[in-house]
Amino acid sequence: MSDDLVTFGESMLRLSPPGNERMETTGQLDVHAAGAESNTAIAAERLGAKAAWMSKLPDTPPGRRIANGIRQHDITTDVVWSEDGRPGTYYLEHAGRPRGTNVVYDRADSEFSVAAAEEFNLERIRDATAFYTTGITPALSEQMRETTVNMLSVARNAGTMVAFDVNYRRKLWSPEAARNTITRLFPAIDVLIIAAKDAEAVLDYDGEPTQLAHHLASEYEFRTVVVTRGAHGAVAIHDNVVHEQDAFETDTHDPIGSGDAFTGAFLARRLSGDDVGRALQYATATAALKRTIPGDVATVTKSEVDAIVADRTEDISR
Amino acid sequence: MSDDLVTFGESMLRLSPPGNERMETTGQLDVHAAGAESNTAIAAERLGAKAAWMSKLPDTPPGRRIANGIRQHDITTDVVWSEDGRPGTYYLEHAGRPRGTNVVYDRADSEFSVAAAEEFNLERIRDATAFYTTGITPALSEQMRETTVNMLSVARNAGTMVAFDVNYRRKLWSPEAARNTITRLFPAIDVLIIAAKDAEAVLDYDGEPTQLAHHLASEYEFRTVVVTRGAHGAVAIHDNVVHEQDAFETDTHDPIGSGDAFTGAFLARRLSGDDVGRALQYATATAALKRTIPGDVATVTKSEVDAIVADRTEDISR
Amino acid sequence: MSDDLVTFGESMLRLSPPGNERMETTGQLDVHAAGAESNTAIAAERLGAKAAWMSKLPDTPPGRRIANGIRQHDITTDVVWSEDGRPGTYYLEHAGRPRGTNVVYDRADSEFSVAAAEEFNLERIRDATAFYTTGITPALSEQMRETTVNMLSVARNAGTMVAFDVNYRRKLWSPEAARNTITRLFPAIDVLIIAAKDAEAVLDYDGEPTQLAHHLASEYEFRTVVVTRGAHGAVAIHDNVVHEQDAFETDTHDPIGSGDAFTGAFLARRLSGDDVGRALQYATATAALKRTIPGDVATVTKSEVDAIVADRTEDISR
Amino acid sequence: MSDDLVTFGESMLRLSPPGNERMETTGQLDVHAAGAESNTAIAAERLGAKAAWMSKLPDTPPGRRIANGIRQHDITTDVVWSEDGRPGTYYLEHAGRPRGTNVVYDRADSEFSVAAAEEFNLERIRDATAFYTTGITPALSEQMRETTVNMLSVARNAGTMVAFDVNYRRKLWSPEAARNTITRLFPAIDVLIIAAKDAEAVLDYDGEPTQLAHHLASEYEFRTVVVTRGAHGAVAIHDNVVHEQDAFETDTHDPIGSGDAFTGAFLARRLSGDDVGRALQYATATAALKRTIPGDVATVTKSEVDAIVADRTEDISR
Amino acid sequence: MSDDLVTFGESMLRLSPPGNERMETTGQLDVHAAGAESNTAIAAERLGAKAAWMSKLPDTPPGRRIANGIRQHDITTDVVWSEDGRPGTYYLEHAGRPRGTNVVYDRADSEFSVAAAEEFNLERIRDATAFYTTGITPALSEQMRETTVNMLSVARNAGTMVAFDVNYRRKLWSPEAARNTITRLFPAIDVLIIAAKDAEAVLDYDGEPTQLAHHLASEYEFRTVVVTRGAHGAVAIHDNVVHEQDAFETDTHDPIGSGDAFTGAFLARRLSGDDVGRALQYATATAALKRTIPGDVATVTKSEVDAIVADRTEDISR
Amino acid sequence: MSDDLVTFGESMLRLSPPGNERMETTGQLDVHAAGAESNTAIAAERLGAKAAWMSKLPDTPPGRRIANGIRQHDITTDVVWSEDGRPGTYYLEHAGRPRGTNVVYDRADSEFSVAAAEEFNLERIRDATAFYTTGITPALSEQMRETTVNMLSVARNAGTMVAFDVNYRRKLWSPEAARNTITRLFPAIDVLIIAAKDAEAVLDYDGEPTQLAHHLASEYEFRTVVVTRGAHGAVAIHDNVVHEQDAFETDTHDPIGSGDAFTGAFLARRLSGDDVGRALQYATATAALKRTIPGDVATVTKSEVDAIVADRTEDISR
Ligand SMILES: [Ca+2]
Ligand SMILES: [Ca+2]
Ligand SMILES: [Ca+2]
Ligand SMILES: [Ca+2]
Ligand SMILES: [Ca+2]
Ligand SMILES: [Ca+2]
Ligand SMILES: [Ca+2]
Ligand SMILES: [Ca+2]
Ligand SMILES: [Ca+2]
Ligand SMILES: [Ca+2]
Ligand SMILES: [Ca+2]
Ligand SMILES: [Ca+2]
Ligand code: NI
Ligand code: NI
Ligand code: NI
Ligand code: NI
Ligand code: NI
Ligand code: NI
Ligand code: NI
Ligand code: NI
Ligand code: NI
Ligand code: NI
Ligand code: NI
Ligand code: NI
Ligand code: NI
Ligand code: NI
Ligand code: NI
Ligand code: NI
Ligand code: NI
Ligand code: NI
Repeated sequence: MSDDLVTFGESMLRLSPPGNERMETTGQLDVHAAGAESNTAIAAERLGAKAAWMSKLPDTPPGRRIANGIRQHDITTDVVWSEDGRPGTYYLEHAGRPRGTNVVYDRADSEFSVAAAEEFNLERIRDATAFYTTGITPALSEQMRETTVNMLSVARNAGTMVAFDVNYRRKLWSPEAARNTITRLFPAIDVLIIAAKDAEAVLDYDGEPTQLAHHLASEYEFRTVVVTRGAHGAVAIHDNVVHEQDAFETDTHDPIGSGDAFTGAFLARRLSGDDVGRALQYATATAALKRTIPGDVATVTKSEVDAIVADRTEDISR
Repeated sequence: MSDDLVTFGESMLRLSPPGNERMETTGQLDVHAAGAESNTAIAAERLGAKAAWMSKLPDTPPGRRIANGIRQHDITTDVVWSEDGRPGTYYLEHAGRPRGTNVVYDRADSEFSVAAAEEFNLERIRDATAFYTTGITPALSEQMRETTVNMLSVARNAGTMVAFDVNYRRKLWSPEAARNTITRLFPAIDVLIIAAKDAEAVLDYDGEPTQLAHHLASEYEFRTVVVTRGAHGAVAIHDNVVHEQDAFETDTHDPIGSGDAFTGAFLARRLSGDDVGRALQYATATAALKRTIPGDVATVTKSEVDAIVADRTEDISR
Repeated sequence: MSDDLVTFGESMLRLSPPGNERMETTGQLDVHAAGAESNTAIAAERLGAKAAWMSKLPDTPPGRRIANGIRQHDITTDVVWSEDGRPGTYYLEHAGRPRGTNVVYDRADSEFSVAAAEEFNLERIRDATAFYTTGITPALSEQMRETTVNMLSVARNAGTMVAFDVNYRRKLWSPEAARNTITRLFPAIDVLIIAAKDAEAVLDYDGEPTQLAHHLASEYEFRTVVVTRGAHGAVAIHDNVVHEQDAFETDTHDPIGSGDAFTGAFLARRLSGDDVGRALQYATATAALKRTIPGDVATVTKSEVDAIVADRTEDISR
Repeated sequence: MSDDLVTFGESMLRLSPPGNERMETTGQLDVHAAGAESNTAIAAERLGAKAAWMSKLPDTPPGRRIANGIRQHDITTDVVWSEDGRPGTYYLEHAGRPRGTNVVYDRADSEFSVAAAEEFNLERIRDATAFYTTGITPALSEQMRETTVNMLSVARNAGTMVAFDVNYRRKLWSPEAARNTITRLFPAIDVLIIAAKDAEAVLDYDGEPTQLAHHLASEYEFRTVVVTRGAHGAVAIHDNVVHEQDAFETDTHDPIGSGDAFTGAFLARRLSGDDVGRALQYATATAALKRTIPGDVATVTKSEVDAIVADRTEDISR
Repeated sequence: MSDDLVTFGESMLRLSPPGNERMETTGQLDVHAAGAESNTAIAAERLGAKAAWMSKLPDTPPGRRIANGIRQHDITTDVVWSEDGRPGTYYLEHAGRPRGTNVVYDRADSEFSVAAAEEFNLERIRDATAFYTTGITPALSEQMRETTVNMLSVARNAGTMVAFDVNYRRKLWSPEAARNTITRLFPAIDVLIIAAKDAEAVLDYDGEPTQLAHHLASEYEFRTVVVTRGAHGAVAIHDNVVHEQDAFETDTHDPIGSGDAFTGAFLARRLSGDDVGRALQYATATAALKRTIPGDVATVTKSEVDAIVADRTEDISR
Repeated sequence: MSDDLVTFGESMLRLSPPGNERMETTGQLDVHAAGAESNTAIAAERLGAKAAWMSKLPDTPPGRRIANGIRQHDITTDVVWSEDGRPGTYYLEHAGRPRGTNVVYDRADSEFSVAAAEEFNLERIRDATAFYTTGITPALSEQMRETTVNMLSVARNAGTMVAFDVNYRRKLWSPEAARNTITRLFPAIDVLIIAAKDAEAVLDYDGEPTQLAHHLASEYEFRTVVVTRGAHGAVAIHDNVVHEQDAFETDTHDPIGSGDAFTGAFLARRLSGDDVGRALQYATATAALKRTIPGDVATVTKSEVDAIVADRTEDISR
């Protein structure tokens, strides 16, 4: 049976001091498997899609730790294993204002970053209903820029729907480099997800989100454009119709991965036949729930999201 | 020396992932001994009453863990020990909005749930000033419905004052079953505590709390009715006089057990001779303090509660 | 692609105080997913087989926790989900002499224990090369005795090789009940694994292990009989040939699951074409490695086991 | 109902880095309530005696923590509470050879150390069957030397049996000071427990344990003398009859408190009517079990000790 | 090379239950090295000064733990080591409203508290640009009152600038004792830092902060007076000019040490040549950052503080 | 004041699952700062030398964490800071037999590995009494081979005594590469430390340790050669005299760093004037103590080592 959604990208060992502790003084690190595209696949699976994640990892204890952490969430993990080498890692400290969450990447020269498209199971992409990656993938290396182009071509040529989140990371590349690369990928994309702040940073667009969505949809001929605005909700343009969705009230414990939860839920509900407005509701509710959960992953059930969408949450459920 | 307050009910092993962690992915569980009636006895003892808790447990490592956790708080634990069998347990996940606190009970077929009134030390109830149980007790099993009726009769016949908290749990029984059983217990009760939301769920009463209190007091001839309203404080009717009390501002860490803290403090101050208004102040302040404490139990001192009632709290006391 | 090995049995939430802590005083519990048959499937997969585990669990947070913990190890998990109900759980304390490891089961009335054969994906058994369960499965309930008989029939009738470990648990049933049930299962079994101490307890056989193996092989027409003897190694009879294997020196951290690691490795190597003597080596080495690992599961790689078999281990590998 | 055994002494907050960690670099400390005399009372209660512990503590968070930790074990805690002041504390690091376990006391000027005999509930001593303290108590201060003398007099005059463990601590006083004080207490004592190494350090006696016991029994007219020898077991002289007991094999996790476990079990079994030889068996088995348990306290059950005495222990009990 | 800033004061072992746990029931304590004057030195070093801390500690495991915890932060630690004795310790529980943070000191009779000025390396004070201590130091003992006077004289006589924070601790002395002692120290002081609430408690001044600063500056001839007001920011008078600074928005995790972070940053920026207004900005931003960090110490970098001052913080930096 | 001993080498973030946990399944990692040459400097400082460690690190949270972890131990840390880049890291799993301790390096392309000799404070080497590095340093990269040659030349030319431990790491380079590089360094070395197993692996010498020492001393004109043999002790040749030393009995908790502890103690005692035999005793005792301590670092005091050398250790010291 083929997949509803195949995602492609690097997942890493996320190393974070417990609670608000600082990296400089910590004696322990919490370990999570983390990566935008596996996060998205997991959220999609949990919201009802049959999801797979494709990647490359070294067959070493830290490499296997990453795969195990993702595999437990019941998605298909289609990993190319190298005999040695390093996985990407990153350090994360989090706190409230004015410190916020700080990421220090240590992902250069990972096994994934030097992988060519031919190494992966391209048949899986061709057989799937939808394919997804993000702007992080081409940001990783020259090789990955080429690989991303090739993966999108495979999907495009097979008639697999292509979804893409801009996911700009200023610690990986400059706005100019991102703009040049990503806009060249746009023609292959059907569904674009972009954070309003990334539109400003990368595309230098600081206007109204609805106008941004319109502008992008018409200029690049996307079928669907979703603009996310954090605590201000999201808007989507689909077949020229605008959908707006407020954010749900949330007490944030760990904001990382809420964008991926949003996208995974959005794609899952779309692939299940929900209309864009309904899918935006599920996306926004899943993102809110993610923010209460430590780690990158939206460990949620569809019935929990249903309760938020239906405004049936309780302070204490017993 | 006889007890001021005897409580009767099941206490369980409460198993909760640390912090905001999810049950699905946790590698550790925090362990607490927890049960409405032992929580109430502890709060009462800490607020100045001589309190005892009666229950039944298996004499196994988890069963003894429950008794030890309660006994450390310096109440009298009058436990009937069975040679084997299981104690009740429950899983608890907590988080802020929109997730909230979620309880999954695993308490069916516990040793307590099949115990008859004759197994317990009924003389202790007859000798006490007050007896207390909650609506959770008859919700546990057919046997416990009968046992609860019998325990209340023992108290009533001995002239021991009877206090009762409705404590509706929809994961244990339906509103209809609860209404049928609990209203039949009402004639034996002197002091009724009821959450406004339970009045709505079980008694289908969604009016003004003061009216609810009046209505219940007159219809069922309770001497005292206390209606609790969470962050909106509480009201009481006692001998036809209304007392109102606002909630204290609180940063909630763990909301579970705040109702029990309220009731334990209320009963302790009443048994010490405070009037209903003063007792409501202590009850509300103890509940606020409980919400800052992990676990079900109000590990507080009377002088801490005094400081809140007297508005003498400090951000940092040093 | 069909499975090399399908195992069937209950897996539970294992709750154990950290280190040598006692259940009575612990504030935390380590959580592991644990069950003889999933342990065996994981060890088999890690030693080179394509393994699947079949079971039933409630679709609740603790139920999903069990599946996640097993699924991360890359076996196929073919779980029937019930809407509610309870999973089996057990409490485990461990220590050195004279305390040892103590298990307290709380697994009665689990969803698995009341499942009928028809609820499971029997086609998977028919398609597999080998099928495996243990004496724990029929010990769980009347229903499970019937279900076990039926599962073995399905395998037998489909020509799937049947392996079985006696795995006697005196806290689940008496020696007599075990003997009656298990010996009636013997005719359906091709490969029998039995601990020497279980042979004594259940079959009342306290002679020499080699003689025991001979005796069982001839009396019940097993193709292979393996008798395990803990620190004294193991012996096997296969097609009337005796194989003996000493245990490897090991510093035990957690003995639980070492028998399952043994069996999983033995079956995997046999299914890969190794002869019985070679398979016994891998089985014994995998069991030794398991004893250094916390939890029930043999989180090992085949190359680690290769190194032990080849006597290439180092105190420090760097 | 009066107590079988009343013990008197200081209990402290024990602060120990987890595992083998060093105090210099630790970020966490494990907390235990610890004191020779409360340890002994708990062991006695668990082996069948009705035991009480008398002491003095400040009514502060650390003071209450000590009482809670002891009270959970179901003995009677008869504590005199001072409004403020400090409890005794100590730091403990443990490791195997050649480091061993190292104690750093910080117990000077504790509330207990300046308490007079009159502050305590002396009636409890008079009503009890036996009274117990150790050589640590008079080592604490001039005041405590006087208080100890007075407590022993109260017991002696009331006909309460007096038991005493020499428990020499070189970090509290010199051998000379200990000898002078303790030998002056000897006339009030019925049952003397002494470690062979303390006999050497304090009494300068380095001969054979049986001879030491004979010598002490005849010189000071003790009814019973028990000489403990760690891994070499123990000997007792009682009414001129010698009893010898080997130690049980044990994998030591935390050696602290094993002497107290020994004494508590010995006294409990003697108070239950067991003869000295049988009581020595239970004492030695309880001490062996204690060594597997973190903290000072023998969290054991009588049936666990029964199994050791009867040689019915298992590596894994399930 | 001489120091920019030398601080003098006691640092302690800070023992705090994890999270919101209560001391009464905790099984673990988090350990930090903590003391107003070492906190201040560390903040100053991190904001660009060359800072040293002078103190006295016992050369014991807990004593060395304190020095290690401070030394890691890269300041000069000039510690007089006594062979034995005790360091100061304190217990800290923290929570939100209405509980707040509660400190229980156990610091009487510490080695520091009985040290005379001559024991310290006074040459370091004479060589430094600035010297700093707080009102906690003379609060510790009669000896420390004398020592503080002498240390200030040494600084004054050498022309070293003297800074002083009133830091009133009501659990150490009465307002009257504090006023008498501290006002007698005022003539030796160039830069006074005082919390508005301490001005009220100790100096009985409850007027406007700017007026307070004026009043103190003129009455005691301070060159600089800084009045801190927690969430309401701070004001300073310097050479008769008023500077006001609002607080930055902050999500407080641990408020302890934010005053020391403020002062350390203020002094560092002043010693680097920043004007008082700019130094107040850095002080306020460093204090805000400290409140997000567990423990007493401001583990920050200057560039983090730069970002706050420049309003360049992000929710997530990646 | 100049240093007794300057060491030069890379220190890393050591990431290890707690206890015996496996990397594949762990949710936490213990963090230590670790590197042969900083380990050695710390052991030397603790045994009485004035020691400094020279290295290069990125000024990032993980880079600063490494420096902090080392600096707390009171050695001089002379670190060159790069603005960005990565520090070396490694993963470590440990267990008893047959698993042992397994290291997975992730240290390629670290900032240290590409540093040239000119970047470091060479004056410190010239001013010191002794200089030390190990065979790990030239194993890191082409650049580091050149840098090591240059550092040794600086020392040699300044008349600073040079000590060197072969420290062969097969996961960094082949025996041939190691032999070629290291034997070319030999002429610059005064004191050679070599493990017997490294002599076998690198120099292909598997004879008697005393003969090996003689052979090396005469062939390469070392003044001192120390051959270490783990649990079999060590031998040294110094000025043609042989010294032999047995190992002390030890219960190993963490074997990593025991060689560095040995060398640090040996050099410190030699630099303090002890003869080679006495220095070997201290070296062997310090190594034994290290094996009881988690992490790479010998957190010991000289008086603890004195006690081992003098055979004055106790099971419990109190
Ligand atoms: Ca699925
Ligand atoms: Ca997290
Ligand atoms: Ca009480
Ligand atoms: Ca909790
Ligand atoms: Ca596989
Ligand atoms: Ca596992
Ligand atoms: Ca009892
Ligand atoms: Ca305990
Ligand atoms: Ca510095
Ligand atoms: Ca803290
Ligand atoms: Ca030093
Ligand atoms: Ca370690
Ligand atoms: Ni977090
Ligand atoms: Ni997590
Ligand atoms: Ni996860
Ligand atoms: Ni919590
Ligand atoms: Ni708790
Ligand atoms: Ni509690
Ligand atoms: Ni374990
Ligand atoms: Ni375990
Ligand atoms: Ni585990
Ligand atoms: Ni321990
Ligand atoms: Ni403990
Ligand atoms: Ni304990
Ligand atoms: Ni905190
Ligand atoms: Ni900390
Ligand atoms: Ni710190
Ligand atoms: Ni370790
Ligand atoms: Ni460590
Ligand atoms: Ni360290």
